[in-house]
Amino acid sequence: ERYESMKKIILDCDPGMDDSMAIVMAVKSPEVDVKAITTVNGNYPVDITALNALKVLEMLGRTDIPVAKGMPEPMFREKPKDPFTHGKDGQAENFLPDPVTPLSEKHAIDMIIDVVKENPGEIYILSTGPMSNIAMAMKKAPEIKDEIGQIVLMGGALTVPGNCNACMEANISQDPEAADYLFRSGAPTTMIGLDVTLQTLLTYKETQQWRDLGTKAGKFLADMTDFYIKAYETTSPHLGGCGLHDPLAVGVAVDPTLVTTLDINMKVDVEGPTRGRTIGDETRLNDPAKTMKVAVGVDVPRFLNEFMTRISGLAAKAE
Amino acid sequence: ERYESMKKIILDCDPGMDDSMAIVMAVKSPEVDVKAITTVNGNYPVDITALNALKVLEMLGRTDIPVAKGMPEPMFREKPKDPFTHGKDGQAENFLPDPVTPLSEKHAIDMIIDVVKENPGEIYILSTGPMSNIAMAMKKAPEIKDEIGQIVLMGGALTVPGNCNACMEANISQDPEAADYLFRSGAPTTMIGLDVTLQTLLTYKETQQWRDLGTKAGKFLADMTDFYIKAYETTSPHLGGCGLHDPLAVGVAVDPTLVTTLDINMKVDVEGPTRGRTIGDETRLNDPAKTMKVAVGVDVPRFLNEFMTRISGLAAKAE
Repeated sequence: ERYESMKKIILDCDPGMDDSMAIVMAVKSPEVDVKAITTVNGNYPVDITALNALKVLEMLGRTDIPVAKGMPEPMFREKPKDPFTHGKDGQAENFLPDPVTPLSEKHAIDMIIDVVKENPGEIYILSTGPMSNIAMAMKKAPEIKDEIGQIVLMGGALTVPGNCNACMEANISQDPEAADYLFRSGAPTTMIGLDVTLQTLLTYKETQQWRDLGTKAGKFLADMTDFYIKAYETTSPHLGGCGLHDPLAVGVAVDPTLVTTLDINMKVDVEGPTRGRTIGDETRLNDPAKTMKVAVGVDVPRFLNEFMTRISGLAAKAE
Repeated sequence: ERYESMKKIILDCDPGMDDSMAIVMAVKSPEVDVKAITTVNGNYPVDITALNALKVLEMLGRTDIPVAKGMPEPMFREKPKDPFTHGKDGQAENFLPDPVTPLSEKHAIDMIIDVVKENPGEIYILSTGPMSNIAMAMKKAPEIKDEIGQIVLMGGALTVPGNCNACMEANISQDPEAADYLFRSGAPTTMIGLDVTLQTLLTYKETQQWRDLGTKAGKFLADMTDFYIKAYETTSPHLGGCGLHDPLAVGVAVDPTLVTTLDINMKVDVEGPTRGRTIGDETRLNDPAKTMKVAVGVDVPRFLNEFMTRISGLAAKAE
């Protein structure tokens, strides 16, 4: 099932609904070899996000993928309150069975360091939560900066407003200092922000297709996405659907040609009224070396087709 | 001297130092037919900006170009204080002779409306100041929206911070409501913001070339630019020069291929701590019709070469 040219990925996440979708999509993408899932405080406390990652892996029958629990809070400052609900269990109240698989004994920080060092230059770190684990790993072992293949992160907003306030996107809001450290680190990083994720919308039409399959996985995905769409009807009624934030980051890790990007050196504002804003670093504007790519355009029909094919295939086959 | 394919331009400006350079560059560009210069409150009160435009035209021997005085204050709210100095006369204290040419009897708003209507679909409105005149003209005669060939404006910042505060660029800061009206109007508009103008830097090396010519115009341009570079040494020491804001807008009006642009529907924040920020309009993110282009990349060597050729040619020839 796995082949030589598979992309080796660490998925660092905080499931969460769209993180759960991202796990499904990554695990069910034949181009991807998920080496580890690391979880972080974010949508929910880290104990819950670790549990939720295991639940999804058990549903998928992929308990061979290790799950390592990471940072219980941001690197700096206090944990902000997440205004957005993912249901009591963080998975739209599907209450998947408690996992029987144990967590890895490694801390997420060490899991990231070890997997990168075992696969120098090859690891894609796919970040769909706050960047606390990744920044801490780079602080602990600065040499991995040059051994990471690429970081692809869902977070931030360059050409559109934030979704927490006018400046701040949710993943960044949970640990702006960690994101700023990552952005200025020089590690090759692709940012998949609200600029593009709010263009890739899912509606009740698509979720009904999953529900109609009559399988458990179909119901799980449909329930979760409907819950998500409902939340969007309150917060962003102009969109007419929910943004596929984290799944798009998986899509781009698999196929970078899904997005058009801008080469730019970025920073995160950490002080003042724009705290949490992701923006070009004016002090490195004229540095010819650009360490980040920010997605500013996306091939919406092609991504939605990829997403639906992968997800619906799973939902049809699983019990 | 003029030929059929010349671009017909209205230059709406608030000279100011780099506006004065923009006038020089526009008038000395053989591809451009400057139909009128309209002036607005901004760097200096409108009486001074009108006078300064006339002074430059007299220096260039081009008093055939009408100058119309426009809005003495923003469309809304009070006039903010400009923290940046252009010298007592707004032209780096060169104190060019008082002009003998009279101002047009038309108000700038009517000049814009009339020139657009006389040349339907052909007029480039080149805006290098606050957008009060242009927005007022579109308010007074909404039909010109479809008769403007293109608006090219220096202002705003999409992928970098502002230069007044973290969000606000100077031209926008003088009348955010006018800019917001323009951005949402649907008129075809290209934004040349700090994203690119802070990449096109001029240093003492270039100004010394003008000074060495020993001409009046050479001295005027060198004095003005040195004054400008000096101001930048205080406000933006990391840049190592001054940004050619307004001249770059002229350059792009002449040759749009100087910049790479992003197709996007824009807005200006007018309330709250981000007042004055130019950002994508999230309510029109998924509208397939994009009415603006925002420059995100610039061919720096090619523009600087164009700029130096045009400006130095003048500085050498004139007295």
